[in-house]
Parts: sequence; structure tokens; C-alpha cells
Amino acid sequence: MTSGDDRQSFRSRLALIIFESDTPLGKLFDVLLLWTIVLSVLFVLLESVAGVRELHGGMLQGFEFVFTGLFTVEYLARLYSARNALHYARSFYGVVDLLSILPGYLSLLVPGAQYLLVIRALRLLRVFRVLKLSRYLGEASVLSAALRASRIKITVFLYTVLMIVLIIGSVMYLVEGPENGFLNIPVSIYWAIVTLTTVGYGDISPQTPLGQLIAAMLMVVGYGIIAVPTGIVTVELNRAARARGGRVCPECALAGHDADARYCKRCGAPLQL
Amino acid sequence: MTSGDDRQSFRSRLALIIFESDTPLGKLFDVLLLWTIVLSVLFVLLESVAGVRELHGGMLQGFEFVFTGLFTVEYLARLYSARNALHYARSFYGVVDLLSILPGYLSLLVPGAQYLLVIRALRLLRVFRVLKLSRYLGEASVLSAALRASRIKITVFLYTVLMIVLIIGSVMYLVEGPENGFLNIPVSIYWAIVTLTTVGYGDISPQTPLGQLIAAMLMVVGYGIIAVPTGIVTVELNRAARARGGRVCPECALAGHDADARYCKRCGAPLQL
Amino acid sequence: MTSGDDRQSFRSRLALIIFESDTPLGKLFDVLLLWTIVLSVLFVLLESVAGVRELHGGMLQGFEFVFTGLFTVEYLARLYSARNALHYARSFYGVVDLLSILPGYLSLLVPGAQYLLVIRALRLLRVFRVLKLSRYLGEASVLSAALRASRIKITVFLYTVLMIVLIIGSVMYLVEGPENGFLNIPVSIYWAIVTLTTVGYGDISPQTPLGQLIAAMLMVVGYGIIAVPTGIVTVELNRAARARGGRVCPECALAGHDADARYCKRCGAPLQL
Amino acid sequence: MTSGDDRQSFRSRLALIIFESDTPLGKLFDVLLLWTIVLSVLFVLLESVAGVRELHGGMLQGFEFVFTGLFTVEYLARLYSARNALHYARSFYGVVDLLSILPGYLSLLVPGAQYLLVIRALRLLRVFRVLKLSRYLGEASVLSAALRASRIKITVFLYTVLMIVLIIGSVMYLVEGPENGFLNIPVSIYWAIVTLTTVGYGDISPQTPLGQLIAAMLMVVGYGIIAVPTGIVTVELNRAARARGGRVCPECALAGHDADARYCKRCGAPLQL
Repeated sequence: MTSGDDRQSFRSRLALIIFESDTPLGKLFDVLLLWTIVLSVLFVLLESVAGVRELHGGMLQGFEFVFTGLFTVEYLARLYSARNALHYARSFYGVVDLLSILPGYLSLLVPGAQYLLVIRALRLLRVFRVLKLSRYLGEASVLSAALRASRIKITVFLYTVLMIVLIIGSVMYLVEGPENGFLNIPVSIYWAIVTLTTVGYGDISPQTPLGQLIAAMLMVVGYGIIAVPTGIVTVELNRAARARGGRVCPECALAGHDADARYCKRCGAPLQL
Repeated sequence: MTSGDDRQSFRSRLALIIFESDTPLGKLFDVLLLWTIVLSVLFVLLESVAGVRELHGGMLQGFEFVFTGLFTVEYLARLYSARNALHYARSFYGVVDLLSILPGYLSLLVPGAQYLLVIRALRLLRVFRVLKLSRYLGEASVLSAALRASRIKITVFLYTVLMIVLIIGSVMYLVEGPENGFLNIPVSIYWAIVTLTTVGYGDISPQTPLGQLIAAMLMVVGYGIIAVPTGIVTVELNRAARARGGRVCPECALAGHDADARYCKRCGAPLQL
Repeated sequence: MTSGDDRQSFRSRLALIIFESDTPLGKLFDVLLLWTIVLSVLFVLLESVAGVRELHGGMLQGFEFVFTGLFTVEYLARLYSARNALHYARSFYGVVDLLSILPGYLSLLVPGAQYLLVIRALRLLRVFRVLKLSRYLGEASVLSAALRASRIKITVFLYTVLMIVLIIGSVMYLVEGPENGFLNIPVSIYWAIVTLTTVGYGDISPQTPLGQLIAAMLMVVGYGIIAVPTGIVTVELNRAARARGGRVCPECALAGHDADARYCKRCGAPLQL
Repeated sequence: MTSGDDRQSFRSRLALIIFESDTPLGKLFDVLLLWTIVLSVLFVLLESVAGVRELHGGMLQGFEFVFTGLFTVEYLARLYSARNALHYARSFYGVVDLLSILPGYLSLLVPGAQYLLVIRALRLLRVFRVLKLSRYLGEASVLSAALRASRIKITVFLYTVLMIVLIIGSVMYLVEGPENGFLNIPVSIYWAIVTLTTVGYGDISPQTPLGQLIAAMLMVVGYGIIAVPTGIVTVELNRAARARGGRVCPECALAGHDADARYCKRCGAPLQL
């Protein structure tokens, strides 16, 4: 056996541990990774709290550098052991892995950049995938398929919302004016979005009777048109739910059988499971 | 008849009164229990109001001890008369019954603990069940079955929401900073949840143009993705509604056939139209 | 013809004008009534505005008395001409008619009672009915039928919501306490409702980290469970929409045909229209 | 060739460029128009920001006049080259085109009128149409058809909401009164709308226990009845989705048959499965 074979075999064994979780070692790696990510995100959150930072700031920052170092080693190991390093580096997970370590180094130059390390939480996604939480991923793909199928309808809806807040925002700037907190049109549009989406902070609110009338109409519109995205997504989810059970009868070609059907509901012929 | 038989018969007669409501005495017991629970919760609410406490605090606390005593006697009677005392003590209702008296005694050591007595309201559930409000319980079980069937989809949805508020919360902490009320990342995440769910207290609100832009986008996302849980639950309720309206197979007794089914989907036997 | 006949005929002619709108005079009466109601409600609104009251208060109050007098005459005429005076007086419209004049007289004793005259707006309902806006009434009855069919499910839902706000309200009173605005348990429950329904005034908001954590969870729950009433009503409306077209085939007894179907979609037999 | 023919041919070539986008020149025109509109709206927004206006106000106003001039030339060219000038001038797009230039001239007389120029954003609609974004327009027409079909139900719903806020607004004015911010009935109605739609600014909020109880009930109602428009639109969208997926009758060409239909529901002819 040559040293090239050795290296090859080491690479594939490494890949088995890092990328899969079928072996005990691979599973251990993923569980360790899971907890390291959770801890690392928790430490970033804690470090941002003034009281905690004053008491344990040094320790937390030390841990953050250790975590960043560990994730860097892991990233390099993934690059090394991946079948196609470039393909991995440009995949969704590859980019997230890189973004999960960069802010750690950036924070040496730009204080505060370390708070962006929370992006590490996205890495949990891969751990879930590797740990074969396949029912969750199946349902997630149903949901995202339904949202993708609604893509165009939702874009049309968002364009309509944008037109409404643009025009109402400008009108309210004229009606209420800077003296009532509607400082300029962009701020008025911000207020219109806060109102249409029924968030309603109350940091800006209309003071004149005409402004309150327009605001009331905008609220009723916002309250009503939430029905539109809800209706769109419900219809798509409904279709997806029916489509999954949609096998075809080999005798009479009736489609749309339930997921648990074993015989055609029209002609009684056995269905393929 | 021995005294053991007497005791046995007393126990089963007691169980009939306490656990059932088919006899006049059993029904009276449940109606009395209903009003005792309602009164007891009302007294806890009233005692927390400063003005009322100053005037009638002693009387209210006296009543609370009486109620706690009564419920303790009732709990012991249930333990004594239940067919399997351990089984009762570990059931949902058994735990609620215990939690409904413990804060009463705890309040002697920890003032304020008596406010936890409102958990007694959960006991009303049993009274409803015993009083044979079965249509309500039937509908409740349809609702909870639909929610259970949506369990995985809703978990996936909540995980997505958690990722969004975690990342947006961290970004807003960097953009707005402690001087605008975003004191630390946990508080920023709290703000992101307040905004995404369209609650919008306004105790914290973005002041910089960039922060307001990010907030506006978060609002539109929150306004839109409420469609997802709504769609999920609607589809499940729809499925449940159709399943209940189905006919039953004369061969294998499978229920829930579609309105247009002519053959059983499980055994292929012809259905009655 | 006796004078009794005359009176009889006068009564029925009056009833034709007041209760129906098939004659030109009946239609005129209803249109006049419509505008009198709208004006009268508008005057009540205007009289409540301090600036307007100071300038035109006397005139507006004068008009209100005139309107109250007119509606009293109308009420008496309805009582006189109704086929069954008692039946009218106890019907929904009879009660609304009475409630629409009482506050006018009450305001002589209790200043401010006149603001309750806005209940007159409910009288518009009858005008709509009489003016044969039947398509609107048809759709309204579909909507209210769907809500009635969801009655039990919605009661169960409201009971669940009540339990949540009762328990969370009590816990928040202990966690936050009077010093953070949670003055007593009733106020805490009010806050919990403001939060769960995503209204979020912000007049009371949690200040402690633990309180903010509980509030955040309550928000997510409130944001999610809005799916439940929405799902319930959607399913019922869907059923109502299908049921309206739900005729049965005379040949093969297939039900659920579309509203525009003329032939059975399964056996091709003609359907009864 | 006469000069009349020349003019005719110039007009039709102009129309081809301005109204269509099949030729390279027509496409170029539309893309230029798209960016001119976006820039022009952006400049209006920027000019409203005090800080920007002080620095670049003159330049931005200059650009606005240039844009207004360009759009005026375009409007005249459209009038000149349209097959029927009057028909164009009275169409939706014709009116929007006119409204997009008028505020520019009006601002010479009434300062501030230029902010109404944001209405130019509506002109983007035409550009989208011309650029053959037909899938988006198809989905938009499905959405607007579903909303149109729900028109009557939604009117009934809005009338109910209006009645609720009118009556609750008047009651709250009596309960809370001007000293708690409920200055008059119109303001109370404004508050009721803010609350019912779950916007909840918090600029006005009930202070008395009775007022908070009524407010809490209004919130629960508002939280619940959002189910109604959502249900209405979902059912209509569902119907639209099914109608599009249907098969076509070979005899009478009726589309929109159910998935399980074997005979045409209008003419009874057998359908292809």
C-alpha cells in the first residue's frame, strides 16, 4: 500500500465521520458539533449583556476564539475531505460554514463583528439533516414547496402592498407633516408599514382628524388583506396534501386516492403501494 | 356482612359520587364543585387588587384557607376511593388536583404563592367532562387531533421563526445599539419577536433609517408567514372534517371514505351509496 | 263600509308603507328613514366633539329631540299597524326600535345618555332588508350559518384562551409585580389578552428578563393559535360553499354536484335544477 | 406618398414604440421608462428628507421638473399616436399618466404638491404589462377575481365591523371619557378600530377596570373575526385553483370539471379520463 492510498483512505474515513452519521464515530461527531454550536451561540448572546461582559467578558471572548478555531479546523477538514472541494465551498452549507468563522477573525479588526457569529445557528440545519430527522425535513420540504408554488402570487401581493404604503405614506406626510412625527416620506412609509402589518408601535401616530381617518382605513385594509397570503398558502398546502396521496388506479385510471388506500374507490381494483 | 364489605361498599359509593355524575348526589357534587372552583379563583383575583386587599384581605385569605381545606379533603377522598390510587395520582387530573392545593400551604412559607391557586381553573375541565358536555369534548378532541397532526410542520415553522429572530436580533443590536434601547442581543431578540408576531409594544423601536428599513422588512415577513400555521391547521381541520363525514365499510368497518367512493379503499368491498 | 273597516283599511295601508317597500310610498318612506337614521347618528357623533358642541351644541341637541320625536311617532305607528303588536315589540327589530328612542328621553335625566343613540345605526339593518338587498342578506346568512356551525369549536377555543391568559396573567403578576405596571392579577390578565391577541398597546410591558421570556412565548403562542379560529371558519365556509351546490343525482344518488351542473358527473343522468 | 400618409405612418410607428414592446426600439423605450419612473419616485422621497433637501434641494427639484417635462412630452405623444385619443385619456392608464404630471405643475402654486408625484409608481404597472410579465399578470388576475367574487361577503363583514366600532366607541366614550384620552366619539371609534384590527398604537388606552374589560372583549372579537375574511378569500382562491385545473368537455368545451367527473356536468357527454 502506498502513502497515496493511505492518504486517500484517510480522506474517505474523515469524510465518513464529518459528512455522515452512520458510523458510531460519525454520530458522536455530529452530536458534539450540535452542542458546540449551541454553546457558541449562547456565549455570543451572553457576551452582549453589559452586566455579564463586565464580569466574565474575558472568559467568554476566550471561549469564542477557541470555538472559532475549532470551527476553522472543521472547515478545513471538510474542504480537504470533500469529494469536490470547490463544490462544497460554493454550496449553501459551505458558505454558512465560512460565514460562521469569518466574524470571529473580523472582530480583531472591527469590535462588535463577533455578534454576527450567531449565524452559526444556521449550521444546526445540517446537523438535523445528518441526524436523519427525516420526517421533519420531509414536512419542511412540503412547506417550502408550497411557499415556492405561491411565489408569483406572493410577489404580486407584495407589489400591491408596496404601492399602498408608498402612496398612503406620501399622503400622510402632507396631511400630518413633520410636526406630528411624520418627518419625511420614507419615515411616513415606515409608519404605513407599521400600521398595515398591524404591528402598531405607537412611536409615530396620527394626531389630526383627517390623518386618523386615513389611518383607520389603512388599518382595516391591512386587517383584511392578510387574508390574501393566508388564502394562497392554504390552497397550496391543501394541494400538496392531496398530491402526496395521489396515486392512479391501474384499472380505471382514477387519480387522487388517499395515502392509505389499497383498493381503487371507484372500481375496487388493487392499487400499487 | 363484614366491616370490610361495608368499607368496600362505602368506597364504591363515594367513588360514584365523586368521579361520576349519573346519580342525583353525584350531579349535585359536581355542580357544587364547579361553583366552589369559580368562587375560589375569583377570590384569588380579588385578593391581588391592592384596594380590595386592604379592606377585605383577612376575609379573603380566610376563605382561601377554607377552600384549600375543602379541596384537600376532596383530594384525599379521591385518593381513597379511586380504584387505583397511584394511577389517579399520576394522571393529568390527579396532578392538577394536587397543584390546586399545594400553593395554599406554600403561601404560609412564601407570601404570594397563593396567586398560583388560579391553576384551580384547570379543574373546571374535569367538571365539564363529568357533566357530559360531550359535544364540546368531541369538538375539542377534533381540534387537538388537528393540532397534533400539524405537530411536525409547526415545529419546523417555529424553528424557522427562531432562526429569523436570532439573526435579525443580532443585526439590529449592531445597527441600533444600546443607545436606542437595544441593550443586548437577548433584548434585541425579544424586540424581534414583539415585531414579527405583530404585537408591537413600542417600548423598544428602531430610530436609525437602516434599523427602520430592517424592521419594516421583518414586519412584512411576520405579516406574511402567519399564513403558514394558518394554512397548516386549516388543511388538517379540513381533513378531519371530511374524515368524520365518511361512510363505513360493511366488511372491514373502516370509516372515513370519500363522498364519491364506491369501494372500500382498504379491503375493496363494495360500499353502500 | 263601517268606520271599523275604515280603521282596518287605514291600518293595513299604514303597515304596507311602514313595513314593506313594494309601493312607491313604501319605498319613499324607507329611503327617508335611511337618511334620517344616518343624519341622526352623525349629529350624535358631532355633538360629542367639544369644539363643535361649544359652537352648535344647542342646535344639535334640538335636532336630536326632533329625531327622537320622529322615531317615537314611527315606533307608535309600527305598534299600531303591526298585525301582532306584542310580537313586534318583542322581536329583534322591535327592541332595537325602542332602544333607539329611550336614550333620547333618558338624557333629560342623565346627561350623556344621548350618546347611546348611536344604536340607531342598527336600524339600518332593517332598511337594507326592506330595500331588497337580498344578495347581501343571502351572503350574510351564509356567513352567520358558518359561524353558528363553528359555535362549539369556537367556545372550546375561547375557553383555552381564557385558561392561558388566567394562568400566564397570575404568573406575570408574581414575576413582574406592581412596580413594573402589573398592579394586580386582573390587570395582568388584561395585559396577557393585549399580548396574546397581538394588539400590544405597550402601556404595560415586561421589564425583567424572565418576564420578557414568558411574554415572548405568549406572543408566539398567540401568533400561532390564531390559526385555529381561522381554520375552523374556513372549513365551515368551504362546506357551506359546497353544500349550496350539493344536489343529489336521481339515478346513482351521487351527491355534491356543482351549482352549475346539469348532468351527473358520474353516470351522466340529467339532474333536477 | 402624400404628407398625410407620412404623418399616418409616423403616428403608427410612434404607437409601436410607445404602446408595444415587440420591436427593439419599443423594448428600449419601456426599459428607459421603467428606470425614469423609479428614479423620479426616488428623488421625490429624497427631497422630503430635511437633511437631503438642505444640501441638494435645488438639484433634486431641477431633476423633478426635467422628469415632469419628459413625462409631459410622453403623455402628449401617447395622446397623439393613440388610435382613439379620448379613449386613451379616459382609460385607467391615461388618468394615471395625467395624474403623474399634474402635481409637478401644481407645486409651482402649492408648495408640497410635488410629493404627490409618487403616484408615478403606479405607472410601473403598465411597464410590467408591456414587458410581457404575463405569468405575474395571470396570477394577479386570479387574485383579483377571487377578491371580486368575495365582494359581497366582504362588504357584509365590513358593515358588521363598522357597527361594532360605532357602538363600542360610543360606550367607551361614556365609560372612559375625555380625561382618559377618549376625547369624543369619533376619537373613540378611531381607538376601537386601532384595537379591533390588533394594531394597538397605545396612544389611547383604557384606564378604568370597566374600560379594560370592554377593551379585552373587543380584542378577543377582533382576534377571532379576522378568521372571516381569511376564510372567505381562501374558499374563493380554492375554487379558482380547482377551476383552472379542470379537464375540458370534448362536446361543449366546458372547462373546470372535477378530478373524478366522468360525464360533462353541462351536456352529459363522456369525458376523457
